[in-house]
Amino acid sequence: MTTEHPVAADREQAVTDRVLASFDGAADPRLREVMRSLVRHLHAFAREVRLSEAEWEGAMGFLARAGRITDERRQEFVMLSDVLGLSMLTVAVNEHGAPGATEATVLGPFFAEDAPEVPLGGDLGRGAAGPPCFVSGQVRSLDGTPVGGARLDVWGADADGFYDVQYAGDRSAGRGRPATDPDGRYRFWTVLPAAYPIPCDGPVGDLLAAAGRRPMRPAHLHFRAAAPGHRTLVTHVFVAGDPYLADDVVFGVRDSLVVDAEHHPAGPAPDGTHRPTPWTSIAFDLVLVPDDRS
Amino acid sequence: MTTEHPVAADREQAVTDRVLASFDGAADPRLREVMRSLVRHLHAFAREVRLSEAEWEGAMGFLARAGRITDERRQEFVMLSDVLGLSMLTVAVNEHGAPGATEATVLGPFFAEDAPEVPLGGDLGRGAAGPPCFVSGQVRSLDGTPVGGARLDVWGADADGFYDVQYAGDRSAGRGRPATDPDGRYRFWTVLPAAYPIPCDGPVGDLLAAAGRRPMRPAHLHFRAAAPGHRTLVTHVFVAGDPYLADDVVFGVRDSLVVDAEHHPAGPAPDGTHRPTPWTSIAFDLVLVPDDRS
Repeated sequence: MTTEHPVAADREQAVTDRVLASFDGAADPRLREVMRSLVRHLHAFAREVRLSEAEWEGAMGFLARAGRITDERRQEFVMLSDVLGLSMLTVAVNEHGAPGATEATVLGPFFAEDAPEVPLGGDLGRGAAGPPCFVSGQVRSLDGTPVGGARLDVWGADADGFYDVQYAGDRSAGRGRPATDPDGRYRFWTVLPAAYPIPCDGPVGDLLAAAGRRPMRPAHLHFRAAAPGHRTLVTHVFVAGDPYLADDVVFGVRDSLVVDAEHHPAGPAPDGTHRPTPWTSIAFDLVLVPDDRS
Repeated sequence: MTTEHPVAADREQAVTDRVLASFDGAADPRLREVMRSLVRHLHAFAREVRLSEAEWEGAMGFLARAGRITDERRQEFVMLSDVLGLSMLTVAVNEHGAPGATEATVLGPFFAEDAPEVPLGGDLGRGAAGPPCFVSGQVRSLDGTPVGGARLDVWGADADGFYDVQYAGDRSAGRGRPATDPDGRYRFWTVLPAAYPIPCDGPVGDLLAAAGRRPMRPAHLHFRAAAPGHRTLVTHVFVAGDPYLADDVVFGVRDSLVVDAEHHPAGPAPDGTHRPTPWTSIAFDLVLVPDDRS
């Protein structure tokens, strides 16, 4: 490996300076700021580790392989961002941080636009494998006011650890859009989510294996909550007791989001139905931050 | 935009610390070093610019689009590395820097393995459009010794600014593998390369447009020179007088690599042939660094 000496340092800095100057003409000052910062940090990385040409070629091959495996259902670059903690850091950078507000976490690679709407008390599991799970709670504003008409997006893995989009075909299961009633309350049936490995048959899986990292995510349900006058919240509810809570491959766990899943025998459920098999329940309130609090 | 305050700074640093620790178990210490440095610099970038969630989504979409357009003939990630100066910086980091050695520059996205071998004095243009160009020179070691049996890879754009791999079909043109004779000399015919824009119909082109950057590369021929006992050299010869020499979109120009292309009328050429049309010539010697000089 070449060691850095004054001549090399000048030669390297000259490259960086030329690249920084090339963004001076950007019409949008924010683009200029972001690209100049990206170039400075990217170049500082390459100089710090004395990046070899073989390593550079390896990085180019990694990105091309990630591109080849990416489609509407497989978001390898989002997974890469997730396992490098960039996704969770972006959440942290943008979080309002108001005491009492529900904490945010990563969107993840399995969100899908235009999931089916689900009536109050409806079933968004729609055939996903796993123990039935009744999920209910209230959406409130930071001052405690119930938020009626909030629109939730909920999605989760089945008992085998797979999301609907990971199966062949266009089935939507374990995914839907419930809304809150005038008192801010929501309730729906789905299946109890299971812990799962993120897809490891691509370059991100290879990276995790080389790093000796387990590819696991603890069991969780994704929520996105949108309501007029409030910041949209992207978060999860995690299931207490999961063995991977301290070892989430995407660094998404926050203590305030871990909730007990209660287990019930076959029999009456809180929505008045009679369950023929054992079932579970999760209670999870969401507290949104008003838009006008900057 | 959220501004950084102490609580936010702690929350953000906690994410970075967890990600750094996740690479502690890598079996290969170099992988650990590279990934930890990458994470530190990537996170420092996101914190410095207070990366918004919309910007993060934009970056994910950019990478997915780059993946979609990438195949064996179109290397969008290499182009991205090139226009961000990472490719040229990697060259600078790895350059030996011995006085007298031919300077290196970027490989670029149009290299192809297994180009056809070309006999001494042969034509690697093979039908590429453009004025005939006779290219000759000597490959020497740093101490002046001629290097016989050196294997060159040469590739260049045609008069329309396109490489063979940018055309439909499997044609190889303007590309080949000459070798040096026992006195280290090489010579071949090709076509005079032209300045050209890098492919702009993908996300890298969009980025350049947004940044107000011209996508041009000045006219050049690529050389890769490999010889036993020597470091493999990747470089270009640039054509003097090109209007884009000071504005190369990939930052690859070095003064020592700029050479006059001589213009000749129809008539006898140095290889004893009679040219029926005007032709050009370029003389370019390559000085390689022995392997044992670390």
